[in-house]
Amino acid sequence: MNQPAPAHPTVGDVGEHAVIREITSAAPSSRNGDDAAVLLPSAPNSRVVATTDMLVEGRHFNRAWSTPEEVGIKAVTANFADIEAMGARPISALLGLSLPADTPLSFVRGLAAGIHEQVQKYSAELIGGDITGGSSLVISVTAIGSLGGNLPELSLHRAKPGQRLVVHGRLGYSAAGLALLKRYGRDGVPHRFAELVSAHCAPQLTPGRGVIARATGATCMTDNSDGLVVDLSTIARRSSVGIDVSAEAIAPDSLLVDAGRELGVDPWQWVLGGGEDHSLLATTVHDAPSGFRTIGRTVRGSGVTIDGAAPSYNSGWVSF
Amino acid sequence: MNQPAPAHPTVGDVGEHAVIREITSAAPSSRNGDDAAVLLPSAPNSRVVATTDMLVEGRHFNRAWSTPEEVGIKAVTANFADIEAMGARPISALLGLSLPADTPLSFVRGLAAGIHEQVQKYSAELIGGDITGGSSLVISVTAIGSLGGNLPELSLHRAKPGQRLVVHGRLGYSAAGLALLKRYGRDGVPHRFAELVSAHCAPQLTPGRGVIARATGATCMTDNSDGLVVDLSTIARRSSVGIDVSAEAIAPDSLLVDAGRELGVDPWQWVLGGGEDHSLLATTVHDAPSGFRTIGRTVRGSGVTIDGAAPSYNSGWVSF
Repeated sequence: MNQPAPAHPTVGDVGEHAVIREITSAAPSSRNGDDAAVLLPSAPNSRVVATTDMLVEGRHFNRAWSTPEEVGIKAVTANFADIEAMGARPISALLGLSLPADTPLSFVRGLAAGIHEQVQKYSAELIGGDITGGSSLVISVTAIGSLGGNLPELSLHRAKPGQRLVVHGRLGYSAAGLALLKRYGRDGVPHRFAELVSAHCAPQLTPGRGVIARATGATCMTDNSDGLVVDLSTIARRSSVGIDVSAEAIAPDSLLVDAGRELGVDPWQWVLGGGEDHSLLATTVHDAPSGFRTIGRTVRGSGVTIDGAAPSYNSGWVSF
Repeated sequence: MNQPAPAHPTVGDVGEHAVIREITSAAPSSRNGDDAAVLLPSAPNSRVVATTDMLVEGRHFNRAWSTPEEVGIKAVTANFADIEAMGARPISALLGLSLPADTPLSFVRGLAAGIHEQVQKYSAELIGGDITGGSSLVISVTAIGSLGGNLPELSLHRAKPGQRLVVHGRLGYSAAGLALLKRYGRDGVPHRFAELVSAHCAPQLTPGRGVIARATGATCMTDNSDGLVVDLSTIARRSSVGIDVSAEAIAPDSLLVDAGRELGVDPWQWVLGGGEDHSLLATTVHDAPSGFRTIGRTVRGSGVTIDGAAPSYNSGWVSF
């Protein structure tokens, strides 16, 4: 006699083909399902831009804190921010998944739905992937983008002294959300901090800011993934410039101040040292592009200063 | 006082930046090192092809059996075979790595060297990546290819009855190599079986066979990753054709027969059920393209037969 189907099947219960069907039904694309995906012809003279990011459970996300949909959103945002940071437009994503056999099928379904929801915001598609068994839950997303026109890409080495430093997105929200989750767990975080938790679990940017910045005078861009001071230091080093940030422009807002008081933590450490916001940090020769605000300027010299002084917090993300 | 530097440092000893330096020095590319990699402009009218594969230690490779260089070669071959199977040319690879902190730095160096060695055979480059800590060693490679010209890509659904079935590469060698490794370990496998072991640990194809096949009448192609019968069954189902394979054309050669005798195993199970050879299986309207040999034909009907009869072995790779 057959066993009755389990009410909450795992990927081990249903097997590889059923898992793939779950993903392709939650994130459909006509380009998926062959040995490799063939993209539509790109615009004349456009160049291909590619990046990859790996998310490991317990390190980049935690199923006790994040819904599967949020993990999917985060995986896409982290990758697409890197495409936008070149001034390019994200067009496709690929998904690699290592799954313990006891992973609920519902997790995979939710993850794919979150990925689909997020790529659609960029008019992009999940075009292919690979799944395998494994002892830990690892999510690998690769993003492919298109860089049109003749302007140079927004490389890390193109900033020059005397340019404006601008940002699109929040600074420190993700780190504050993580600190709250660690203290209280998802259900215990006071409701007024929901935006901070969301910034950590499912960071969002407005699609298209990278292309707009590149079209309106940006010279260099990166996303705030490792921490503001760390990421700006990378620009400073690669471009051989100094960067001076205005303390007033990045000062913790009332929500961060409130969260800092709640946890007994100086909120400046989130603003200066917290990564994973994936906010876009750019230098530009013109005014702040639409959606960006000015937070400082590039200067002759080296390193990063806040109102001319060394930052009080500068440690960022550590991988090992 | 500082600790003396360890003689055999781990990735945890040296940290993320040193690990990245190790990779980019073993596999240099001017396109690496920014938020995302920008590829050279592609040929007019060419389309982008992309695929991703994840290799998990203990499942797809085993450090007791494979050198780090071999693992790198295998990761590239598995991905590039998927690009070739569309009739496209591999041009780039991205590498995602989840590394336990105690992973020797020498493993990462060797892996990157193997990847570099293999992508260079295709005139391709490792253009970017991501590394992170994690409890298990997971390697994610994404390959990007270029599909030129106006011929359709070699999709799984384009075979028609009355076409020739051809293969480039060995069948069953990887499975035989794995069986020998399981029995004897790397050092214990009799030397006369070195080619089988190598087929498993570091599979190699002749670059460019996919493009050549597409240019000379191939209609459909896949790589033998899950097992001959499984992979041909996929073509048969997706193309709504039957596939009849000539037993004589795929019969185990003397090396496989010898290995089968050594292990007390019927070598036909390796030929019919063994995957991971990454040999290219194609249907074509013309003669076998250069580098391919004829092993059967497509017929009206459905499913896969060997000399008109059901295959004696048809199980392939199981993920969970």
